Amino acid sequence: MHGGFLTPGNTSNPVGSNVNLVSVEQIPGLNTLGISIARVDYAPYGLNPPHIHPRASEMLFVLEGSLYAGFVTSDEDNNRLFTKVLYPGDAFVVPQGLIHFQLNLEKTNAVAFAALTSQNPGIITIAKAVFGSDPKISVDVLTKAFQVDKKVVDYLQSQFWPNN
Amino acid sequence: MHGGFLTPGNTSNPVGSNVNLVSVEQIPGLNTLGISIARVDYAPYGLNPPHIHPRASEMLFVLEGSLYAGFVTSDEDNNRLFTKVLYPGDAFVVPQGLIHFQLNLEKTNAVAFAALTSQNPGIITIAKAVFGSDPKISVDVLTKAFQVDKKVVDYLQSQFWPNN
Amino acid sequence: MHGGFLTPGNTSNPVGSNVNLVSVEQIPGLNTLGISIARVDYAPYGLNPPHIHPRASEMLFVLEGSLYAGFVTSDEDNNRLFTKVLYPGDAFVVPQGLIHFQLNLEKTNAVAFAALTSQNPGIITIAKAVFGSDPKISVDVLTKAFQVDKKVVDYLQSQFWPNN
Amino acid sequence: MHGGFLTPGNTSNPVGSNVNLVSVEQIPGLNTLGISIARVDYAPYGLNPPHIHPRASEMLFVLEGSLYAGFVTSDEDNNRLFTKVLYPGDAFVVPQGLIHFQLNLEKTNAVAFAALTSQNPGIITIAKAVFGSDPKISVDVLTKAFQVDKKVVDYLQSQFWPNN
Amino acid sequence: MHGGFLTPGNTSNPVGSNVNLVSVEQIPGLNTLGISIARVDYAPYGLNPPHIHPRASEMLFVLEGSLYAGFVTSDEDNNRLFTKVLYPGDAFVVPQGLIHFQLNLEKTNAVAFAALTSQNPGIITIAKAVFGSDPKISVDVLTKAFQVDKKVVDYLQSQFWPNN
Amino acid sequence: MHGGFLTPGNTSNPVGSNVNLVSVEQIPGLNTLGISIARVDYAPYGLNPPHIHPRASEMLFVLEGSLYAGFVTSDEDNNRLFTKVLYPGDAFVVPQGLIHFQLNLEKTNAVAFAALTSQNPGIITIAKAVFGSDPKISVDVLTKAFQVDKKVVDYLQSQFWPNN
Repeated sequence: MHGGFLTPGNTSNPVGSNVNLVSVEQIPGLNTLGISIARVDYAPYGLNPPHIHPRASEMLFVLEGSLYAGFVTSDEDNNRLFTKVLYPGDAFVVPQGLIHFQLNLEKTNAVAFAALTSQNPGIITIAKAVFGSDPKISVDVLTKAFQVDKKVVDYLQSQFWPNN
Repeated sequence: MHGGFLTPGNTSNPVGSNVNLVSVEQIPGLNTLGISIARVDYAPYGLNPPHIHPRASEMLFVLEGSLYAGFVTSDEDNNRLFTKVLYPGDAFVVPQGLIHFQLNLEKTNAVAFAALTSQNPGIITIAKAVFGSDPKISVDVLTKAFQVDKKVVDYLQSQFWPNN
Repeated sequence: MHGGFLTPGNTSNPVGSNVNLVSVEQIPGLNTLGISIARVDYAPYGLNPPHIHPRASEMLFVLEGSLYAGFVTSDEDNNRLFTKVLYPGDAFVVPQGLIHFQLNLEKTNAVAFAALTSQNPGIITIAKAVFGSDPKISVDVLTKAFQVDKKVVDYLQSQFWPNN
Repeated sequence: MHGGFLTPGNTSNPVGSNVNLVSVEQIPGLNTLGISIARVDYAPYGLNPPHIHPRASEMLFVLEGSLYAGFVTSDEDNNRLFTKVLYPGDAFVVPQGLIHFQLNLEKTNAVAFAALTSQNPGIITIAKAVFGSDPKISVDVLTKAFQVDKKVVDYLQSQFWPNN
Repeated sequence: MHGGFLTPGNTSNPVGSNVNLVSVEQIPGLNTLGISIARVDYAPYGLNPPHIHPRASEMLFVLEGSLYAGFVTSDEDNNRLFTKVLYPGDAFVVPQGLIHFQLNLEKTNAVAFAALTSQNPGIITIAKAVFGSDPKISVDVLTKAFQVDKKVVDYLQSQFWPNN
Repeated sequence: MHGGFLTPGNTSNPVGSNVNLVSVEQIPGLNTLGISIARVDYAPYGLNPPHIHPRASEMLFVLEGSLYAGFVTSDEDNNRLFTKVLYPGDAFVVPQGLIHFQLNLEKTNAVAFAALTSQNPGIITIAKAVFGSDPKISVDVLTKAFQVDKKVVDYLQSQFWPNN
C-alpha cells in the first residue's frame, strides 16, 4: 500500500516532465510480485523523452491532458514508429525493451500512470545514456554510430553530463 | 493501443460495480507481454466483491472517489485482513491469488484502474463461484465448509445462478 | 528426503480432514525446486473444504477410500463445476488458483496425496478467509457480495474466528 | 482427470519395472500447468534404472513395498550418492536433471507414484541412451569415456538396441 | 546444427560491421531453448554501433583482432560507462536491455561471437531507431530529448532513412 | 568482464580434455543473467565425455581443429543419436538435459567455446556419476541397469573413484 501519487512531481527541468517510479526500492514488499507503477507529470508541452525499460513491458494511461505517445520497433521490424494521441482514460502498451516517449500537446499540465511488469524495471533515457554517460562514450564510436562529424557529437555531448 | 476506457461501465447490477478487463482476448498483441488492465466503475456504495486472480498480482489505483480496499492473507499467515481507504492517486497492491475487494464509501461514483501481471489473469468471484457454480456444489460440501445448516446454504445458493 | 507421511493426520475437527503439507518451510532444500507435497487424511464423510493455492497447480490422487473431488472454473468460463468420484489410484488435476475440494463418501477413513507445483504453494480456505479473517471483513462488503442480509452474514461470521 | 492408475503396469522385462507416465501427450489439458505424474510398478527385486528427467524435478513416494532409492549429485558436488530405503508413505525428492534410480528390495511387488514439475518432463534411461542409441555412439567415444577397452564396450552395446 | 559461421559477413557499409544472427527465424528448432548466437565481423576500425537487445543478456567473445567494448548502465545507476579492450579469447557480458557497442581498434579485420539468452533476442540500433524510424519521430520530441535545435535534429535525421 | 580464456586448459588427463566453466561461482555478477560460458580444450584425439547440464541448453562452436559432436534424444524419441563433424566457425546446439559429447578427430589440439543458458548450469559426467559416485552405487542396481554381470560392473567401477 502506498499513497504517494497525490502530489504532482516537479517538472521544472529541461524536458518538462517528472517520473515518480514506485518499485521494489520504495516498497520492499513488491519483491517477487513482478509489478511496479509510476506517476508521470508533464509540464505544458513537456516531454517524457525516448527511453527503454530493460526488464519490463509497460501499460500507460492518461489521467489528465492529452499526450502524443509512441514507440519504435526493433531493426528486424524496420524500426517502425507507432504513435497515438491519448486522452484521459486511454491506454497504451509498450513491449519490453522498445524505445518509447510521450509529449504533452497542450499548454496545460498532463498526468499519466504507468504499470510495469517488473518490481525492478529500470529506466534508460536514450539521449542521456548515449551522450551523457560517465565517462563519455568515445567520440570515435559516436561519430560513426550517428554518421555525423565530431563537432556535432561534441555539441550533443555538451548538453549532457553525469547526474544532470 | 486501446481507447475504450473513456466510457464508464454499466453498474446497474446487484453489487453496483463493473469491471472492464482488457486482456489478451481483447488485444491479441498482448500475448507474451504479461500485462493486462481493467477499468473498474463503482456506483454509489457499489462493491467490487471479494475475488481472486488465479494467474496475476494486481496494482490498483483510484481515479475518482474514495474506496475501502482490502485483501486477506493465506491460512499460513492466519488469514489476516489488510485494508486501506484509498483516495484519488492512491495505489494498492494485491499479491497473486489472494482474496481482495473494494467498496465505494461515497454516494457518488468512483473509478479505479487495475494493472495485472498477466495477459490472461482470470477472475474468480468468490460468492458466485462457491454458491452459483454450474452445476451447484453439493450441499454436503457447503454445509460442512461453512459450518452452517442446509437452510442457510439453500438460501445462499438461491441468490446465485449460472450467468447472473 | 522425508518420511513423515506414514502417520495419519488428526481429523478431529469440524470439517473432518487434515492436510499435512511438506513445503519449503519443512524442507529448506526444496527451495527453487518448484514442488511440494501433502498428505490429506479424511475422517468418515470428512471434507477438505473449498480452497485455493495462490501459487500452484495441484495433482491429487487417492491412496485409500473414495473421494468426491471437484473444482470450479473462473468467471470467464461461467464458473463451471467439474467433479469426479475418485478411487484408489485415480488422479485429479487442479489448475493454479481454482477453487477445489474433496469429500469422503464413505464411513471409513480415506487418504490422498497431492503434489503442488511450488515449494511454497499457499493454502487459502475460502470459508475461513472470507468469514473468519482477522479482523473480520466489513458486514457491508459481505452482505452485498453474497446478496444476503446482515443476520446471515453475522451467523456465518460467528462460525469462524481467527486460528480456529 | 484421469483414472488409469488402478491397473498395474507390465513388469515382464529385463529390469523388472514399468513406468506409466501421464503427461501432456496423454492429457492435452495439462499444457501450461507444469505438472505430470507417473505410476511405477516394480516386480520382485525390480529396478527403475538410473535415469534423468531433462525438464523436471521429481517427488516420488511409495504406495506398496520397500524401495532403495538414490540420486547422484553433479561433478561440482563430487558426484555424491544419496540413498534411502523408502516404505509406504515415504517421500523422496530428486532435483531437476540428476541421475536417480529405485530398486525393489523385496520378493513382492512394489508400487510408487512420482510427481514431476513439467507437463513434458522427458525420460532418459542412462544405460540405453549411452549404449543403445540409434545409431550407436562411436566406440572411440565410449572406450575413452568409460576408460575400458573395446571388448567391454562391444559387450555393453550388445545388451541394448534401439527400441528394446 | 548450423554451419554458416565460416563465411565472414559483408562489412561494406557506413559503420563497417556485420551481424549475422542465428535465431529462431533461421533455426525453428531453437524455439523454447532460450539461446541464439551471432557472428560479428568488423572491418578495420569498424563499429558495431550502440544497440540493445530487448529480450536477452549477451556474452561476447573475440576470435580475431582487438575490440574496444562497452556498455552503459541505467539512469538509476547514473549511466555509468564500463569499457574494456578485448583480445582473442576474452569474454564480455552485457546485462539484458543495456546499451552496448564494440569498436575495432586495428587496421585489420576482427571477428567476435555473441551468445544471447533468447531464441528471439531482438536488435535495436539506437541511432537508427531514434533518427531513422519509419515514419520519423516528431522533431519536437527530438529537439527536447537531445536538448539541441531543429537544425541538428534535421541533420541527424538526414543520415538515416528506413531500411538503410 | 572476464579475460581468462586466453590460456589453454590442461588436458593431461585420461580423457584428454579440459572444461574451464565461467559461471556465477567465478563471476557473482552473472547472477540472474541466465548465462555462462566455457572454454573447452581438447588434446589430440581428446574427448569431452558424454555429460549433461541439468539446468541449461548449450550452444557450442569451434575455434580451432575439427570435432565430432553428438547428442542423444530422450527415450520418448527412441534415443536417437545426432552427430556432426564441426570445423572452425561451426555451431552446434544441445537442448537442456540431453547427453552430449565431442571428440577431437585430429592429431592437433582443438578449442571450442560453449554458451550455456544458466549462470549455474551444472555438469554431470555420465561415466563418473554412474560408476565413480561417492559412495558407489550398489552393484545390484548397475548389473540390472546395464544388463551385464558383476565382474563387468566391478571393472567399470574400478576405473573411477571420487575426485579422479
